[in-house]
Amino acid sequence: MSDPALTLRTALAEQLADAARAAILPFFRAGTLADNKAASGFDPVTEADRAAERAMRRVLAQAVPGDAVVGEEYDPVAGSSDWTWVLDPIDGTRAFIAGTATWGVLIAVCHLGEPVIGVIDQPWTGERWTGTPEGTVWRRGGEARAVHATAERRLDHAIAATTDPYLFSGVQAEGFARLRGQARLTRYGLDCMAYAYLASGGIGVVAETGLKDVDAAALVPVVRGAGGVISTWSGAPVLPLDPAWDGSVLAAGNPDLHLAALAQLV
Amino acid sequence: MSDPALTLRTALAEQLADAARAAILPFFRAGTLADNKAASGFDPVTEADRAAERAMRRVLAQAVPGDAVVGEEYDPVAGSSDWTWVLDPIDGTRAFIAGTATWGVLIAVCHLGEPVIGVIDQPWTGERWTGTPEGTVWRRGGEARAVHATAERRLDHAIAATTDPYLFSGVQAEGFARLRGQARLTRYGLDCMAYAYLASGGIGVVAETGLKDVDAAALVPVVRGAGGVISTWSGAPVLPLDPAWDGSVLAAGNPDLHLAALAQLV
Repeated sequence: MSDPALTLRTALAEQLADAARAAILPFFRAGTLADNKAASGFDPVTEADRAAERAMRRVLAQAVPGDAVVGEEYDPVAGSSDWTWVLDPIDGTRAFIAGTATWGVLIAVCHLGEPVIGVIDQPWTGERWTGTPEGTVWRRGGEARAVHATAERRLDHAIAATTDPYLFSGVQAEGFARLRGQARLTRYGLDCMAYAYLASGGIGVVAETGLKDVDAAALVPVVRGAGGVISTWSGAPVLPLDPAWDGSVLAAGNPDLHLAALAQLV
Repeated sequence: MSDPALTLRTALAEQLADAARAAILPFFRAGTLADNKAASGFDPVTEADRAAERAMRRVLAQAVPGDAVVGEEYDPVAGSSDWTWVLDPIDGTRAFIAGTATWGVLIAVCHLGEPVIGVIDQPWTGERWTGTPEGTVWRRGGEARAVHATAERRLDHAIAATTDPYLFSGVQAEGFARLRGQARLTRYGLDCMAYAYLASGGIGVVAETGLKDVDAAALVPVVRGAGGVISTWSGAPVLPLDPAWDGSVLAAGNPDLHLAALAQLV
């Protein structure tokens, strides 16, 4: 891939995140559950999801009509270039309807199937993590800084996270219980934000299963750009567009911590 | 109690929250775990906790020297009035060190032991919930609005929350499992923010045990001011300064939902 093509798409990814933010915020905390879906059929999270994905696809259709697009809400668009955009307008819809600030917008750019640009944007707090081969940058308002995952190598000193511990069953549940037992402490309910906080150095390990392509693609460049390591639970690369990917992710702040966590899961 | 005394202390509680916010923010995400505690003995959360409590106690000593003070970090101060301030400078220290925005500053004012003013402040997002007998107000920047808990009466339509499901054991674990099984969905890891989101209508039910006085006092006026109901797991009033309180809290958006949740726990 050429650098200008990557630079263009990094700038475009930021434009997409801006467009998604503007589309979503009017729907956030827009009435309670009871006021909305049950009474009137109006479902703010679905409306917000769709509005944001439409806004992002409009930008792409104008700027890079030859790139393929995979999104959560609408049909895939085939491309004629080596690039595929992978969009999840609201990762963490349960968090969104609960009114927390732990959901996010996920935007990824894959080159020949490999995620090379990733954005995790939190519209309500105004925070954004953008990962590229050059590093991961955190921004809020006018502030911007490179972020770095933890250098802590010991699992018993590190913070682990997963969104919902009750999603695991069988050997996965046993593996996660071992990981939780070894980690310093474990946090829950963060969806994509867990990977953002890993990039910023607070969380050391995130382990999840059952992810879809749109849930996972943006995480890869954000984690790697901050110096972290991301694989499946069997240590294979996370290639969300590859049908062979098993939907699992294990992210860690550095290679030693990743190996220590992997040893608990397998 | 007289209204002017309550009005004065509501204004003071906002001053305390401002002071705590300024004291804490410099320590938030101030390096990773590995960079700090292990290497140098510097523990940002403890430093932030203490700095914020000192800042709040300074305001109180000047403005209402006759009021009693109970805080997490320093010895209690006995009072000569009917009022007691209950301070938790950082509720959710685990969330704080993980770098999430799900911790908060808790400030309560009790009159003859009953919590009548409560503030839940989130310095990083800039959001604040202030509960008084007149209602609960949410503020961010220049925005301010009265908030209302959900009117949803059915548990199977409501969102439940608890900070760490692994904190429960025995009959409490069984009760929480029933609650989780009946609720529409369950979120984790929110500490005091779960009660703030309940006041804003997103979360319907929060169930926790093992809370301390400083963890719980501020929650009571915030939940009640938004129209919610808060009790222990056996339906008794939450009186955090009373030695008879068992450390449990069940908060719900309205009386029907509270009863439905209580029925699962007992």
